[in-house]
Amino acid sequence: MKPVQVGVIGLGTVGSGTVDVLIRNGTEIARRAGREIQVTRAAVRDIKRDRSCDLTGIALTQDPFDLVNDPDLDVIIELMGGCDDAYALVMKSLESGKHVVTANKALIATRGNEIFERASANGLVVAFEASVAGGIPIIKVLREGLAGNRIINLEGILNGTCNYILTQIRERQVSYEEALKDAQALGYAEADPHFDVAGIDAAHKLTILASIAYGIHLDFNSVQIEGIEHITQSDIRYAEELGFRIKHLGLARRYGDGLDLRVHPCLVAEHQLLASVSGVMNAVLVEGDAVGKTVYYGAGAGAGPTASAVVADLVDVVRTLTADPNNRVPHLAFQPGQLAQSNTASRAEVMGAHYLRLTVADRPGVLGEVTKILGDRGVSIRAIHQKDSGSGSQPVPVVILTHRAREADVAMAIRAIEGLTVSAAPVVRIRLEGEE
Amino acid sequence: MKPVQVGVIGLGTVGSGTVDVLIRNGTEIARRAGREIQVTRAAVRDIKRDRSCDLTGIALTQDPFDLVNDPDLDVIIELMGGCDDAYALVMKSLESGKHVVTANKALIATRGNEIFERASANGLVVAFEASVAGGIPIIKVLREGLAGNRIINLEGILNGTCNYILTQIRERQVSYEEALKDAQALGYAEADPHFDVAGIDAAHKLTILASIAYGIHLDFNSVQIEGIEHITQSDIRYAEELGFRIKHLGLARRYGDGLDLRVHPCLVAEHQLLASVSGVMNAVLVEGDAVGKTVYYGAGAGAGPTASAVVADLVDVVRTLTADPNNRVPHLAFQPGQLAQSNTASRAEVMGAHYLRLTVADRPGVLGEVTKILGDRGVSIRAIHQKDSGSGSQPVPVVILTHRAREADVAMAIRAIEGLTVSAAPVVRIRLEGEE
Repeated sequence: MKPVQVGVIGLGTVGSGTVDVLIRNGTEIARRAGREIQVTRAAVRDIKRDRSCDLTGIALTQDPFDLVNDPDLDVIIELMGGCDDAYALVMKSLESGKHVVTANKALIATRGNEIFERASANGLVVAFEASVAGGIPIIKVLREGLAGNRIINLEGILNGTCNYILTQIRERQVSYEEALKDAQALGYAEADPHFDVAGIDAAHKLTILASIAYGIHLDFNSVQIEGIEHITQSDIRYAEELGFRIKHLGLARRYGDGLDLRVHPCLVAEHQLLASVSGVMNAVLVEGDAVGKTVYYGAGAGAGPTASAVVADLVDVVRTLTADPNNRVPHLAFQPGQLAQSNTASRAEVMGAHYLRLTVADRPGVLGEVTKILGDRGVSIRAIHQKDSGSGSQPVPVVILTHRAREADVAMAIRAIEGLTVSAAPVVRIRLEGEE
Repeated sequence: MKPVQVGVIGLGTVGSGTVDVLIRNGTEIARRAGREIQVTRAAVRDIKRDRSCDLTGIALTQDPFDLVNDPDLDVIIELMGGCDDAYALVMKSLESGKHVVTANKALIATRGNEIFERASANGLVVAFEASVAGGIPIIKVLREGLAGNRIINLEGILNGTCNYILTQIRERQVSYEEALKDAQALGYAEADPHFDVAGIDAAHKLTILASIAYGIHLDFNSVQIEGIEHITQSDIRYAEELGFRIKHLGLARRYGDGLDLRVHPCLVAEHQLLASVSGVMNAVLVEGDAVGKTVYYGAGAGAGPTASAVVADLVDVVRTLTADPNNRVPHLAFQPGQLAQSNTASRAEVMGAHYLRLTVADRPGVLGEVTKILGDRGVSIRAIHQKDSGSGSQPVPVVILTHRAREADVAMAIRAIEGLTVSAAPVVRIRLEGEE
């Protein structure tokens, strides 16, 4: 089957990242989607600028309407941002029979109703997973994964810039102004940070999530919006003394007969999951009447995470274009003919750190014997604790944390330790996870 | 359009919960799916037993093949558990042209390859979201939401019983045996807990997730399995002293050219998100090359959460049966004609707790004036802290936490406080989130 041909409008951070992911993971993506996906054209403002992605096979133009009018393109990816021009391009794409994938939250939040009406009338898809919470597939979760629920409450850290600034103020005891400057230097905040710090970006995202969660038309104007500009170091410190973190949240809740949609700073008790989401990370808590509370966590922005969402949308669109109408999403994610044989890693070679609990006679020299056994097999020790050393007549527990070592070497060392005459019980071995 | 007719095999906890959710949320579900969904038949072992769900309009039988052979049924929901009988029923359902929704992890992990082959050959869907991690839509996330990624690492708390037992040992200092007895009394563990505590249930789930994440055939035998029976109170305490929690994890990682699939207890550093997942909750961490680390958290079992996943699968299946082939999943989750007008809650009436930071003259009587203003407007105080009380010549901050109060009353109180002659700056007001 002919590859699906895609045109990308905008090759900035997210556009380049998307081209990059499509090339790097092209084989796996085609195995999932059932067709190859090729970016063949891109529209950019400055044709001469260096791009971080491989442009082989991609024809550049300065006029995005060249892409919209190109009969060879099946899908347009809109990554230019802004509202009016993007709206014109998306509507024109739909008129010319092209599916659209967009990361443009402002566009969807403010003009989405008209866009979706046009798309449905023309039998086309406008996919917008990348418009909210970066790489977290929160739109798919709400639209499909929780489709059996009556949603009761939705709250999220939706703006990475705000969360980064609040985290910096708390962790590094800097002022709001310093934290903002820092965010700008690292590319987390725009030169004009107003959209982020005043809460408008989060309100766009909340508008989209609320519509999907509660089955209402998109209505940006119904969101009450407050930013973080007035939050001081002292507020964050006082809140902490009382057991809270200050987070900038978007909230969408049923309230009586209506919905309460709001974006503003909140005190969140420190034991709650959202309180521990720091830096530029995003998280969304969704409470449904059947499922209870669920939380979705990941990077809310950046080239890779946003590209992840754009490509997932593209795969969804391609799956609707391909052959088997009764079974478009393959059962095991990859098309049936494309499943590989599992190749099991050699367990003996797997590296990892280990917790070992020994039960040994409480007498001098035992630790020396044990550490020698480990050392001889290349297992180095990170910590060793002898517990309850008491009377000397009873065996005592010795706890050892190892550095990373070959699983086979650790197993051999355990057998050797168990063979010592001072060993009074089998060694308990528990692996460490998520450590370097 | 005629309602989709569904037969349920098994009306235990999950079956009754599913019928319950389909009735309770019937209107919203039909607005999403585009068709009404009706359970018209159910197969149960004991026809006379009382059920917790409403059985109006549901014909009961003791022979599940009555459902499989009923030409009026479009979808079979298999909730009987076990392997051999369930396999026969699912294969027969597929032969007779029926889609299948199942929560049976053992069946999918051990016989899924044959089942999916038959389903694809017949153009049918076998949906199994409920087989892993209860209500968390982790299968959809991996299969569709992260389709652009090369998955690098997947690790999860997949068995609520194990996590409950480990949490109880740590938090209540009870023995493994006591914690297990407790789990059994609460219905979290079976009378024969072997499948759970020996890690077999988690291994079934890991088999399914690994297949979807890495595009391999289901291969239960490639999972290395270890349970939690050998974990003692002391291990949990020693681990805690070293800064770790002990969690029972399923892990699926690329390792060299192969995959390393394993289920066993692990030490997890306490600052990591998985370390804070307690009780019967589940969580899955998925790391993709584009998206980075993402985490999905929710209830891993129980009537409501599992029913949430079963119904989401049902909606997916119904969406494939309905009219508009180019656009089966509606853009905003609900079918276009079914979106409601947003009804904005009256903000003045919304109740909530507040953090107030006042800047006031440092002299006697000020706190009295402030608390009187709040009290007169029905805003009761949970905590009040006067900060940096120093020389007396400079205004000082006073931090107040209120109990829940009408937003309008708080706003009036703030205006009144700002009108006091002792007030030296506007009041900073931040709302509290997630508190009773």
